[in-house]
Amino acid sequence: MPNLLLKIRYKGTNYHGWQVQKNALSVQEVLQNSIEKLYGSRLDVKGCSRTDTGVHANMYCVSFNAPFYAGDYHTISALNTFLPPDIRVYDCKEVDDAFHARYSSLGKEYVYLVHNATYQNPFYSDYSYHFRYDVDIDLINKAAKHFIGTHDFAAFCSAYSDAEDTVRTIYGLKAERDGELIRFTISGNGFLYNMVRIIVGTLLMVSQGKISPDDIPEIINSKQRKNAGRTAPPQGLFLNKVFYDEVLY
Amino acid sequence: MPNLLLKIRYKGTNYHGWQVQKNALSVQEVLQNSIEKLYGSRLDVKGCSRTDTGVHANMYCVSFNAPFYAGDYHTISALNTFLPPDIRVYDCKEVDDAFHARYSSLGKEYVYLVHNATYQNPFYSDYSYHFRYDVDIDLINKAAKHFIGTHDFAAFCSAYSDAEDTVRTIYGLKAERDGELIRFTISGNGFLYNMVRIIVGTLLMVSQGKISPDDIPEIINSKQRKNAGRTAPPQGLFLNKVFYDEVLY
Repeated sequence: MPNLLLKIRYKGTNYHGWQVQKNALSVQEVLQNSIEKLYGSRLDVKGCSRTDTGVHANMYCVSFNAPFYAGDYHTISALNTFLPPDIRVYDCKEVDDAFHARYSSLGKEYVYLVHNATYQNPFYSDYSYHFRYDVDIDLINKAAKHFIGTHDFAAFCSAYSDAEDTVRTIYGLKAERDGELIRFTISGNGFLYNMVRIIVGTLLMVSQGKISPDDIPEIINSKQRKNAGRTAPPQGLFLNKVFYDEVLY
Repeated sequence: MPNLLLKIRYKGTNYHGWQVQKNALSVQEVLQNSIEKLYGSRLDVKGCSRTDTGVHANMYCVSFNAPFYAGDYHTISALNTFLPPDIRVYDCKEVDDAFHARYSSLGKEYVYLVHNATYQNPFYSDYSYHFRYDVDIDLINKAAKHFIGTHDFAAFCSAYSDAEDTVRTIYGLKAERDGELIRFTISGNGFLYNMVRIIVGTLLMVSQGKISPDDIPEIINSKQRKNAGRTAPPQGLFLNKVFYDEVLY
């Protein structure tokens, strides 16, 4: 049975995240249904991570053992025929048996978009957090530097998480302005539940002068969720890249 | 009664164009309902032009006589409270009594987006025409030059139009590539029914070698719709700017 790696994009607005759940439509369920239509049997599809309701993916990776491999073009085109327009497969390849979309991942990159303007824009509302206050990009980037490296990020993890090991390594974190949009880009070896959204919410409070950039190390060290900032809303968040060993995959 | 000029943006996907019609939801109807909620009476709202089902607006202008003017911030904020997220007011000002959103217009600019890639992208599907074939931007721009100036554009007008005068002046027309997106920008003193979409469809046929750039003057001169290219689909089209006398408005 060939082991396939699919790369997909999805607009998360109408889905309750990636993972299959009772009484709510998930991206995984819709993708599994399409794969079942193509192969004629129910296959176990492994995703690279969970995502929350309303969160999007520019690159989401899944792996599964298929009964046969019809080549990339035919596999992608057939799956896209069965999928709704807000989920699209854009890459497919055969990988070795040991590959697993989640366990083989070396890390991920997320993007968070803030629409910084007085009034909302209908083209951004599903894809960004509308934030009407002045944003100080330099101050945010001064605070952002303190997140980079290996830390215990318990203070930046939802209280609803059951993660036992809360140590993660952040490779990079920066904010850039492009007109009315502010783009946060963060990469790391792994992320706790709501971690990106709490970091963005905290950095926006830094911009508002409610938290000083120099307070960040202390907030991290406290390991207390209550010391960090608000959780930014889901619709601004995009899983942007999933890193694997380039030589192998 | 103060005469107000509103600038709005809308995502046209869920509307049957601007104009009020029976048995279908239009942007005008939704905006008029919001204005009625704000002022407590049904007001006659004049739009700058018709738009088709699925067509978007980055800038759409309306004018109406209001019982009172509460200032820009309060008027915009109140209307946005009553509007759905896919229609947003972003500017409002008082203009002189003679101003009319349509008759005072000196021209318009449209943008048409083509998503040029093998596979569809869920973030572009409502906002662009997915076109998988190679696109030759230089060839398109060579053909585009022939549209600029004052011509009888009867060949680039839907057969369903009842326009008597089909002479229009095109100020500018160009295509630019930005990654997988191709952006057509066209400005002129006025546009016939489906004119932008037929011009874009024709230019894509030039790119495919089905029409030569040098054939364009002959197609224009023929005044026959059948000699021009296909009508590109509505979801790639954006009304982008409406021009008024800058000194007056």
